[in-house]
Amino acid sequence: MNAVHVLNGPNLNLLGRREPGIYGTTTLADIETMLAGAARAAGVTLAFRQSNHEGELVSWIHEAGLSGAGVLINAGAYTHTSIALRDAIAGSGAAAVEVHLSNVYARESFRHTSLIAPVCIGVICGLGATGYRLGFDALVAHLGRGTPTK
Amino acid sequence: MNAVHVLNGPNLNLLGRREPGIYGTTTLADIETMLAGAARAAGVTLAFRQSNHEGELVSWIHEAGLSGAGVLINAGAYTHTSIALRDAIAGSGAAAVEVHLSNVYARESFRHTSLIAPVCIGVICGLGATGYRLGFDALVAHLGRGTPTK
Amino acid sequence: MNAVHVLNGPNLNLLGRREPGIYGTTTLADIETMLAGAARAAGVTLAFRQSNHEGELVSWIHEAGLSGAGVLINAGAYTHTSIALRDAIAGSGAAAVEVHLSNVYARESFRHTSLIAPVCIGVICGLGATGYRLGFDALVAHLGRGTPTK
Amino acid sequence: MNAVHVLNGPNLNLLGRREPGIYGTTTLADIETMLAGAARAAGVTLAFRQSNHEGELVSWIHEAGLSGAGVLINAGAYTHTSIALRDAIAGSGAAAVEVHLSNVYARESFRHTSLIAPVCIGVICGLGATGYRLGFDALVAHLGRGTPTK
Amino acid sequence: MNAVHVLNGPNLNLLGRREPGIYGTTTLADIETMLAGAARAAGVTLAFRQSNHEGELVSWIHEAGLSGAGVLINAGAYTHTSIALRDAIAGSGAAAVEVHLSNVYARESFRHTSLIAPVCIGVICGLGATGYRLGFDALVAHLGRGTPTK
Amino acid sequence: MNAVHVLNGPNLNLLGRREPGIYGTTTLADIETMLAGAARAAGVTLAFRQSNHEGELVSWIHEAGLSGAGVLINAGAYTHTSIALRDAIAGSGAAAVEVHLSNVYARESFRHTSLIAPVCIGVICGLGATGYRLGFDALVAHLGRGTPTK
Amino acid sequence: MNAVHVLNGPNLNLLGRREPGIYGTTTLADIETMLAGAARAAGVTLAFRQSNHEGELVSWIHEAGLSGAGVLINAGAYTHTSIALRDAIAGSGAAAVEVHLSNVYARESFRHTSLIAPVCIGVICGLGATGYRLGFDALVAHLGRGTPTK
Amino acid sequence: MNAVHVLNGPNLNLLGRREPGIYGTTTLADIETMLAGAARAAGVTLAFRQSNHEGELVSWIHEAGLSGAGVLINAGAYTHTSIALRDAIAGSGAAAVEVHLSNVYARESFRHTSLIAPVCIGVICGLGATGYRLGFDALVAHLGRGTPTK
Amino acid sequence: MNAVHVLNGPNLNLLGRREPGIYGTTTLADIETMLAGAARAAGVTLAFRQSNHEGELVSWIHEAGLSGAGVLINAGAYTHTSIALRDAIAGSGAAAVEVHLSNVYARESFRHTSLIAPVCIGVICGLGATGYRLGFDALVAHLGRGTPTK
Amino acid sequence: MNAVHVLNGPNLNLLGRREPGIYGTTTLADIETMLAGAARAAGVTLAFRQSNHEGELVSWIHEAGLSGAGVLINAGAYTHTSIALRDAIAGSGAAAVEVHLSNVYARESFRHTSLIAPVCIGVICGLGATGYRLGFDALVAHLGRGTPTK
Amino acid sequence: MNAVHVLNGPNLNLLGRREPGIYGTTTLADIETMLAGAARAAGVTLAFRQSNHEGELVSWIHEAGLSGAGVLINAGAYTHTSIALRDAIAGSGAAAVEVHLSNVYARESFRHTSLIAPVCIGVICGLGATGYRLGFDALVAHLGRGTPTK
Amino acid sequence: MNAVHVLNGPNLNLLGRREPGIYGTTTLADIETMLAGAARAAGVTLAFRQSNHEGELVSWIHEAGLSGAGVLINAGAYTHTSIALRDAIAGSGAAAVEVHLSNVYARESFRHTSLIAPVCIGVICGLGATGYRLGFDALVAHLGRGTPTK
Repeated sequence: MNAVHVLNGPNLNLLGRREPGIYGTTTLADIETMLAGAARAAGVTLAFRQSNHEGELVSWIHEAGLSGAGVLINAGAYTHTSIALRDAIAGSGAAAVEVHLSNVYARESFRHTSLIAPVCIGVICGLGATGYRLGFDALVAHLGRGTPTK
Repeated sequence: MNAVHVLNGPNLNLLGRREPGIYGTTTLADIETMLAGAARAAGVTLAFRQSNHEGELVSWIHEAGLSGAGVLINAGAYTHTSIALRDAIAGSGAAAVEVHLSNVYARESFRHTSLIAPVCIGVICGLGATGYRLGFDALVAHLGRGTPTK
Repeated sequence: MNAVHVLNGPNLNLLGRREPGIYGTTTLADIETMLAGAARAAGVTLAFRQSNHEGELVSWIHEAGLSGAGVLINAGAYTHTSIALRDAIAGSGAAAVEVHLSNVYARESFRHTSLIAPVCIGVICGLGATGYRLGFDALVAHLGRGTPTK
Repeated sequence: MNAVHVLNGPNLNLLGRREPGIYGTTTLADIETMLAGAARAAGVTLAFRQSNHEGELVSWIHEAGLSGAGVLINAGAYTHTSIALRDAIAGSGAAAVEVHLSNVYARESFRHTSLIAPVCIGVICGLGATGYRLGFDALVAHLGRGTPTK
Repeated sequence: MNAVHVLNGPNLNLLGRREPGIYGTTTLADIETMLAGAARAAGVTLAFRQSNHEGELVSWIHEAGLSGAGVLINAGAYTHTSIALRDAIAGSGAAAVEVHLSNVYARESFRHTSLIAPVCIGVICGLGATGYRLGFDALVAHLGRGTPTK
Repeated sequence: MNAVHVLNGPNLNLLGRREPGIYGTTTLADIETMLAGAARAAGVTLAFRQSNHEGELVSWIHEAGLSGAGVLINAGAYTHTSIALRDAIAGSGAAAVEVHLSNVYARESFRHTSLIAPVCIGVICGLGATGYRLGFDALVAHLGRGTPTK
Repeated sequence: MNAVHVLNGPNLNLLGRREPGIYGTTTLADIETMLAGAARAAGVTLAFRQSNHEGELVSWIHEAGLSGAGVLINAGAYTHTSIALRDAIAGSGAAAVEVHLSNVYARESFRHTSLIAPVCIGVICGLGATGYRLGFDALVAHLGRGTPTK
Repeated sequence: MNAVHVLNGPNLNLLGRREPGIYGTTTLADIETMLAGAARAAGVTLAFRQSNHEGELVSWIHEAGLSGAGVLINAGAYTHTSIALRDAIAGSGAAAVEVHLSNVYARESFRHTSLIAPVCIGVICGLGATGYRLGFDALVAHLGRGTPTK
Repeated sequence: MNAVHVLNGPNLNLLGRREPGIYGTTTLADIETMLAGAARAAGVTLAFRQSNHEGELVSWIHEAGLSGAGVLINAGAYTHTSIALRDAIAGSGAAAVEVHLSNVYARESFRHTSLIAPVCIGVICGLGATGYRLGFDALVAHLGRGTPTK
Repeated sequence: MNAVHVLNGPNLNLLGRREPGIYGTTTLADIETMLAGAARAAGVTLAFRQSNHEGELVSWIHEAGLSGAGVLINAGAYTHTSIALRDAIAGSGAAAVEVHLSNVYARESFRHTSLIAPVCIGVICGLGATGYRLGFDALVAHLGRGTPTK
Repeated sequence: MNAVHVLNGPNLNLLGRREPGIYGTTTLADIETMLAGAARAAGVTLAFRQSNHEGELVSWIHEAGLSGAGVLINAGAYTHTSIALRDAIAGSGAAAVEVHLSNVYARESFRHTSLIAPVCIGVICGLGATGYRLGFDALVAHLGRGTPTK
Repeated sequence: MNAVHVLNGPNLNLLGRREPGIYGTTTLADIETMLAGAARAAGVTLAFRQSNHEGELVSWIHEAGLSGAGVLINAGAYTHTSIALRDAIAGSGAAAVEVHLSNVYARESFRHTSLIAPVCIGVICGLGATGYRLGFDALVAHLGRGTPTK
């Protein structure tokens, strides 16, 4: 049975309370609930986690990748600075899709660079919570095809 | 009744014949067929076009934006060089989603910059033809909410 | 009898409908009307054209330059990216004045560079439709002096 | 009664004696005479000044801006290096038009950047002494409209 | 009753033992004692913490910001590399003042850039332990005015 | 029977009338005549075309590449700015040789970069019309060897 | 008896009238009054000056430095462009603290670089008029310790 | 009795399972075993640790440096991004040697920069597990000489 | 009687043994034989040399240039780093054509810059040993026209 | 009778008191005395001036250039930032030699660029007061030859 | 029987006399003696050479690589500037280890880049003469395994 | 008895025949004659050499520096590219003055950087053969003072 680990990075625990002009009022719990339903429907195991620690995210990627689970990752600020996350995805062989709630290309220039995108299958950004759902679907389809990640 | 205009840029007419290692064997016609079905199901008008001319793409964006249609755009190489396309989206008020078949961030560095992303709602890349479907769905949902583009 | 060809680049057909906060409500037709009157008064032939195609603008510059007409050009987005327009001006020997409705230096940094300015006589920006009139007058005076372009 | 202060920066006192291949033989006094006539015709008070001191130009901009006069400024070399002049225009609320005799974009690359253009209404360059006249006219029209500067 | 959370980043636990030529012999405990006295005098609650973990600092900023406490932050090395800390300050709405013991502008060039300064109220550097006191006073005054942070 | 498509980009229609100090007085028709003779002698079909439109050049490369014809391309100004032409060559599998009449390395620095050179077999520049002949010969030899392009 | 020279650079004479959204309504005279009181209380001589001339600021720094007075300097726009001010501080041996009313790091990028900070004791910015007071206090404490500047 | 602390950064726990084309099949436990033997032979205490947390590595460097132990560090991805690790080495006075299993200079350009190398004694890379042994020997020799680190 | 000096730079003595995937199995002696035949046919004196020493290549260019011989030069790695070779060509007045066996633009970015191209007549690359023949022919034609080099 | 104007820029009035480790104990008056003797011996009029004002230096260059006097200029910090001084030299036609007491290339990188050197005859640096003497001699010889400056 | 060629670049003949603060008092002869002993013990032929000529080093690398000998190279200053040495290593197929006596990363920034490192097996720096010994051992082990270089 | 070694780099043997518009008709032999006279008068031994080989120049600098002779060096093109020459001067302890015949700052930008200037006493450029004489005099005076080089 396939599994998808949804990993959320720093500050995403603030979601719903944080800069609503950019992120809206949906909370991380709302997104988890939405994906839990989708996972049940798809017959896929769901893990949904958040951490402000880069090292913890690295370890969670290892856990997912080595167990064959897919990774839907919103690495938040670490997207733009963490080679460690990149190495974790590449090193553990995790099939990963990168997702962002906001359109990072319409914000500060330091958000236009992703160190993890090159080792992911693809990227979705700017579509809000819907982006999580689209990424989840794409990942489930990917795992279903049994295609090697890269 | 809502409408979605799917605009494909230079060289996408080669799809299926072009660098299958990167793009696979799906043709543009296959994608059009897939989206036509989705459009019927969603009760949305579909226009599906391809051009190698930057100027023609500019005009098509005007047509979509001024008529209130959403734009799903794979601008191909012009993504990285065309300020004219950016101005067309911003100027016509088109609600647009940017899509790429391949993961542009895993390719040459000049493909890592998008001049149109900052004026789009969001971006989807690396998910192949599925990305068109996800982008179409996101756009239909967006139009259905009657949310102003930006 | 002297002639001035006024060439407008991509998206300028949207003028009046496009981003009024930046460009106001004047349309391209309004500007043409204004210049037509000025041309009659000055005894100068006027051609007034707009295209979204870089290649068409190149050909129109050739036509003007080879016939000895002056060129008043608002190349829009192509101002910042088109070496082809630069070569067209230099190659056809056209006496050209560059004009922009908005103050490009108060906008995004990629609008601060003009590839065609170095081969023009001069540049006018930020003065709205008035800038077209000022540029027209300067060009008529230039042609009247029979001064070689460069 | 409206007023226009024409402020000339460093080395412009050499005009007519300085690099005639670039600047021609017109002197600053010739330009003042031309504008004095235009000012009379327009019913506008004219102040016409030149200084080699950045600090003096800053003070003159304050004087103009705080009194509601428009500023036509050829800041010469300080155009490219002076944040102080920029702050003077923005801080005093002066409505300003930047003018250059030569086409700065056809000269050394350090002349392609203007620190003051972003806080001016617009820029005119390359049209010689005529550029002063065009800038004066644009400024008079601007002041006549009673439009707030920015 | 107002509160100020003083957050110290990586390596500051070495203070007093570390590079005395740059940082002197004052320890972090000395600074805490000084500020505890000041807090008592000002009738302000003080929290004083140090962590080498970026993620822990992110969480502490959340705690302060969401509770309405002001943040006096010496993020040490993370000042120059952490977008996560920046997002934590902006996202939690914390009123923050950045402080550094040494004059970072007199050291290596990578210490001249602060990713968090743009979302802080202000910055104090180079004034040693006194800088903590000055920053504390400024923050207390700021909280007393009930001014919204940004 | 092998074929060579000679594709000329923007402004090359001006050849012979344009900046003779750089390009001489040979016209594009002269070059076509020269190559027509060479093609007859070599038993090769010749197509010789010019366009100011980037999109048209893209389509012509497709036509050549998909039919197995070799491409001798002088992309003019588009050499330095067009990722679309690069993708057209790579995507259509065309065996291409890049040619320039002038020595682009002795001109403005923006002419020193070619976006298409990395996907061509080779480059010839600075040898005037002779360069077309040399490139044609190299291409004919290449096609004769039946070597895969890349 | 110790002395502190407070030196204010270009455009600071506009304070209170200038961009109140950034600088508030406090005038330079208000700040002088505040510091005069503080100086009396501390038994320190105060000099308080403003100039729009870089050269005059250079001379005033010499005067302060050579007489052993401390310098509290808000060099305004010259902060970012003047090597002469830097050399004046270093050359005259003045103990200097740099102060800015606004948070320069939250403004245009050219305000993020200070040429004088590396030769100052420290920097305070973003704390408004309070920053002058904090800088004054730090400087008085520094002079009281008889510590050599650097 | 001298001690060497071998500190391994993020993702090194994957060693042997991770990208064998680059890193081979040796595990971190194999390396520890090898060094344990060498330590016994040299009469040196060995500590051998791995963490994915930057903050934990910072603390371990403190522990080593303050106790006078040498540090053999493979900081993995943090090598290229962590100023905190650099400050930890410099601040704790640890004698450190940097080691990498792979030749980082033959990989992505962001791996060519080390923030910690300037505060280490030296660097060894590309020699696989042997590099750990060579670095250990060099460190033991260094400690034996009683030479101050820097 | 005209002469052509063919000068080969560092590592070209390895030709045929060196990286056959890039350079093929042709040796430098094979190329010399080919050109010797062409020289006989054209009635031109041939000198064919190779050196790993930059200084020796400089001297050989002097010898050629001062005697009026043309220079066909494959400067190998020195192409990208040697201002001395550039000065030798410009200073001795040698008519030179630059040639490379491989397509340097399809290799590492540091091979995309040629310091000698701006002082050569033209450049040929990517056409293998044929490129030497084409360059030789172009040079012989050039010398036959008695055209001054530059 | 020929004349040499020796112009000294900002902070040079501190000479002898300023950073003796870099500049020694010679004062500007000592240098003037030395050159006065040399001027008498050479039958040349000497003017020797110092100013901290960029604008005053601009005016003095005009005075020298328009009267045919040679200029020996140590522009101090303005060397690296002043386009106005450059324009003054070029515009007034002054024959100028740039001199620096210290070896600017052994100091901070912002001192490695001179905006005035390109319009001077030559540059002398690092030779202390002797450099003034050598520059004076070179200038006198230059004026004696009646060679036009540029 | 395996062989190791130790190649030393420019200025290394000064070792022991040159900048002892950086390099110590060990001479190149001392290092040769140390390695000669190690070579005898390992049953490996040793060649030990030094040259100030880039071209000679290129030739020596060829000699080593073509004969199957390993190369231990301290290319000195040429490390940072010589593409020719890089090509020599890659072209001759030499198994090479790069060594530096000092920690180049703690020195000027132009010493932080190595053009040869990417084609070597690995790099050792900062460990003084010991580094030669470690590199020699690594190379002997490498040759003993009969592993292909790259 | 003091000695001065005058070392001339690549292409200087062409002097008098090479680009007279830039360098004039003086030959290197003329300069040697001039300096030989000066050396006799000063009681200084003169060595005067020229080489196109970087390695030979390195060795000559060693010879001069180790014998205590001063070095007057015109390194020609190697000035801008040779770290080896820089290391030779620093490593041998040679007191050196850099000289250039032409004003390198008025030529191509790659001639504006000198890698050797930071380790020389000073630089003289643009004064033609006279510059050699001035540099010789400065060096003789320097050696006479018995001042340590740096």
